[in-house]
Amino acid sequence: MSKKIVIIKTHKDEAALALVKDTAAKYGYSVEVYGDLDEAKPHLEDAEIIHGMGMGLLANTPNAKWYCIASAGINGYDADYFDERGVLVSNSSGTYGTTIAEHIIMMATMIMRHMFRFDELRREGKWLSFKEVTDFRTLCGSKILVLGTGNLGATFAGRVRSFEPASIVGVSKSGREVPEFDRVVKLEELDAELPNADLIVMCLPGTPETENVLNKERIALLSKDAIVINVGRGNAIDEDALMDALENDRIAAAALDVFKEEPLPEESPLWKTKNLYITPHVSGQETAHVTRELNMRMFCEDIENYCEVRPLKYAVDLRRGY
Amino acid sequence: MSKKIVIIKTHKDEAALALVKDTAAKYGYSVEVYGDLDEAKPHLEDAEIIHGMGMGLLANTPNAKWYCIASAGINGYDADYFDERGVLVSNSSGTYGTTIAEHIIMMATMIMRHMFRFDELRREGKWLSFKEVTDFRTLCGSKILVLGTGNLGATFAGRVRSFEPASIVGVSKSGREVPEFDRVVKLEELDAELPNADLIVMCLPGTPETENVLNKERIALLSKDAIVINVGRGNAIDEDALMDALENDRIAAAALDVFKEEPLPEESPLWKTKNLYITPHVSGQETAHVTRELNMRMFCEDIENYCEVRPLKYAVDLRRGY
Repeated sequence: MSKKIVIIKTHKDEAALALVKDTAAKYGYSVEVYGDLDEAKPHLEDAEIIHGMGMGLLANTPNAKWYCIASAGINGYDADYFDERGVLVSNSSGTYGTTIAEHIIMMATMIMRHMFRFDELRREGKWLSFKEVTDFRTLCGSKILVLGTGNLGATFAGRVRSFEPASIVGVSKSGREVPEFDRVVKLEELDAELPNADLIVMCLPGTPETENVLNKERIALLSKDAIVINVGRGNAIDEDALMDALENDRIAAAALDVFKEEPLPEESPLWKTKNLYITPHVSGQETAHVTRELNMRMFCEDIENYCEVRPLKYAVDLRRGY
Repeated sequence: MSKKIVIIKTHKDEAALALVKDTAAKYGYSVEVYGDLDEAKPHLEDAEIIHGMGMGLLANTPNAKWYCIASAGINGYDADYFDERGVLVSNSSGTYGTTIAEHIIMMATMIMRHMFRFDELRREGKWLSFKEVTDFRTLCGSKILVLGTGNLGATFAGRVRSFEPASIVGVSKSGREVPEFDRVVKLEELDAELPNADLIVMCLPGTPETENVLNKERIALLSKDAIVINVGRGNAIDEDALMDALENDRIAAAALDVFKEEPLPEESPLWKTKNLYITPHVSGQETAHVTRELNMRMFCEDIENYCEVRPLKYAVDLRRGY
């Protein structure tokens, strides 16, 4: 069997890929990079290590011993298939916190500072005196509630801390303390926190347990000023209940980057919902150089672990879902 | 003479105003609040302390002993007039850093993440696959250059630090060290810094010395990736040279909140300049509750100083311009 690593990447970032090539060469591995699965297919049969996304990358890879999934989310992968093959599986959780934190802070400030309205006026060439401007809000002084205290939630919390929010409370299954948060509560205690939050940031993985975490009953507990931002997985919000709350001004606004169905269909009523701001799952992804570099650095760490016969640092449990 | 304080405020913020009323009462002063100068006029003649904006507030205030200017900028005030009257003058520098830092980070991330384009697509109900997304940039890893190391520049630098930029360099007249910056250089050394900056943030006061600091020659020194954000005063940029650089893709983008002429006239070519994003002088202003409260807290400090016959903490030199 040839000692071959195949990387499947939409955005080829030569500087980031050079890191992997250097590490691989140390252990006598070659590295091949392809833009998508179709391009990669003829070259997968003898690959030992594969870095990419989607169940499709498993076809015709009889010699693969380790699959590194390029995303943080690992929902949609068939755990049985991996088990039967007895292969290693890792993911890329930790790659996306940096870029997603910038997305969250961007969307929160855009909503708090009426930027969607100001940008409409800009397109029309219209100046609006500050005397006519309705109240801006600020991250400074805001009460922030973060669902999910992993890499996404903690990186955001670490960055937003410098804006001097009134509080940053985390919510997780275990309720285990994480230093970036003032305190972390268990999911069972979520309901008590919801009425006090100015900004609710959802960074949850897509598992059966996170299905509709923000359901109709919980949306009803939110304050009129609440802003909801979802950058985790779309399954975590009851989209119909959210639309209803927004259309009736029961909460202030929402910014969704992830949806139950992606791409979001053209006919989805979410597009036209009042005070709902949609981005097409770009808060993370490998759209930024820092992300691509971090992704490759983490892969390098595990190439070293793999070659030195140590456990993979980023190994995942597909049944648990993270 | 009656012991009377008059405050002229567009946005009446009862919580913030209560702070002043409490402090004033301690020293036997009454406080009157009016929405604008016209409303205030009949009540100014016997006022001893006046808090507001614009030269107009000096008319018919023969008994005033102290004017507190509600803005940080004090360009446009006639120093001779104040001198002749022998009155105290203070300003509100320190009030706006918090809200302006949020504006800068919002505009920088919006540009770096192509948010103006994504928002157009949202309005049209169009999803764009991340595969078609051109490169995002991040504050993380960016080289940031800040002109002006006072309250605005330092507050922004303190907040953006948590995003892990590659560097934060300040520029000031004195070059004096300020802890929020990696280093501070003198204005004479600006030219050497310009080619290396990914993000140039301008936080300068409007003085004769800051006139066209970013002139045609300096704009020519910027890199093709440079993003320019101005939140200080509009006099600091040669607007024609900036438009020319943007239209010819010699720099990446600019976000202007301040202009040589405000309101920006409808016929200004700035409105339609490529990659130029305009906001109507709302980065600061008293549009946010934190700003209004901070503004009143600072005023309270100086009410105590005034009543205890100590120097005003926020006294300004109108001839120097800050």
